[in-house]
Amino acid sequence: MSSRSAGRPRTSSRALIEDAAAELFLENTYGATTIDQIAQRAGVSRNTFFNYFGAKSDLLWVELDAAIDRLEVELRAVAPDAAALPALRATILAAVADIGVERVPLALTQEDVMGTREETRSSGLTRYARRADVIASFLGRQQGLPDDDLAVLAKAHAVSGAISAAWTVWARAGVRRHPLSEYVAQALDAV
Amino acid sequence: MSSRSAGRPRTSSRALIEDAAAELFLENTYGATTIDQIAQRAGVSRNTFFNYFGAKSDLLWVELDAAIDRLEVELRAVAPDAAALPALRATILAAVADIGVERVPLALTQEDVMGTREETRSSGLTRYARRADVIASFLGRQQGLPDDDLAVLAKAHAVSGAISAAWTVWARAGVRRHPLSEYVAQALDAV
Repeated sequence: MSSRSAGRPRTSSRALIEDAAAELFLENTYGATTIDQIAQRAGVSRNTFFNYFGAKSDLLWVELDAAIDRLEVELRAVAPDAAALPALRATILAAVADIGVERVPLALTQEDVMGTREETRSSGLTRYARRADVIASFLGRQQGLPDDDLAVLAKAHAVSGAISAAWTVWARAGVRRHPLSEYVAQALDAV
Repeated sequence: MSSRSAGRPRTSSRALIEDAAAELFLENTYGATTIDQIAQRAGVSRNTFFNYFGAKSDLLWVELDAAIDRLEVELRAVAPDAAALPALRATILAAVADIGVERVPLALTQEDVMGTREETRSSGLTRYARRADVIASFLGRQQGLPDDDLAVLAKAHAVSGAISAAWTVWARAGVRRHPLSEYVAQALDAV
């Protein structure tokens, strides 16, 4: 049904909520779907929903949010004496390495069907900003600079912007798309 | 009163609206100020307000929006055979050249006073995205590539992100800040 159904069966509460939301958004549009409807179809309580997701729009960005979470965790594990930019590049690519050709955020593939264009733009920009914060913290830490240093912030925003571009082009490439990490590598090389 | 009052008297409808808004936001907070109140204090009709501004949040970003407008116009005037990146850098710096140390967007200096943090973040990201679109159009045009080419989009988002960082650091520098163009030049050099 949704691309997320591919592969092994998904039975955790989180996966049930994600699959229920994807179905309902496609059936009824994003705007006409309520959190209660999603919880009901997933067979979980409203409280359980909010244990996993802060807002309905989070369900548009599941894969991207997971990648930013991985990036944040893995950047914290980089050795303090590692050169910042090569380590950043390697960690960014590792954080998207398991995102193949199927797992595309609903926000980037279904916006026309689901009527989410405005919501998508706004919630997508929030992800760009969060990723820039994560990268700025890392660069500041590695380089012994405050994370609001101009060069640190400029690099962090530039890298985050390049990654946004990669996700967008990757999603739009449709079924012929290659794994995401190829697009991210090209985008990072371009900047 | 506001920093915008410095210099020559401002009597155009646009300037009257901007000054009225700045006063009201500081007196009553951004959230508690209505468009009708702004129009009334500026001595213009509600229709006149909407001739100049599409939304209340536009008043938080007057200087930045003007700079993006200039950038868009000036990029369209670049010779088709000019090398894209040097021309882009020069045009970006020209578009902020007359922004000295006083003309800071309200969004970036007054967010605590005015209670605009959420609104600022969201409306600021919209500016980042618009500037990235403007730059991608230019790079695509100069390089004979579609403006959704990955390298074009990655560069455009990276440059737009670096400029966002420059505005932020510049605004936070407070009264000791240097002209904006110095920060933008440093941010561009960093990426």
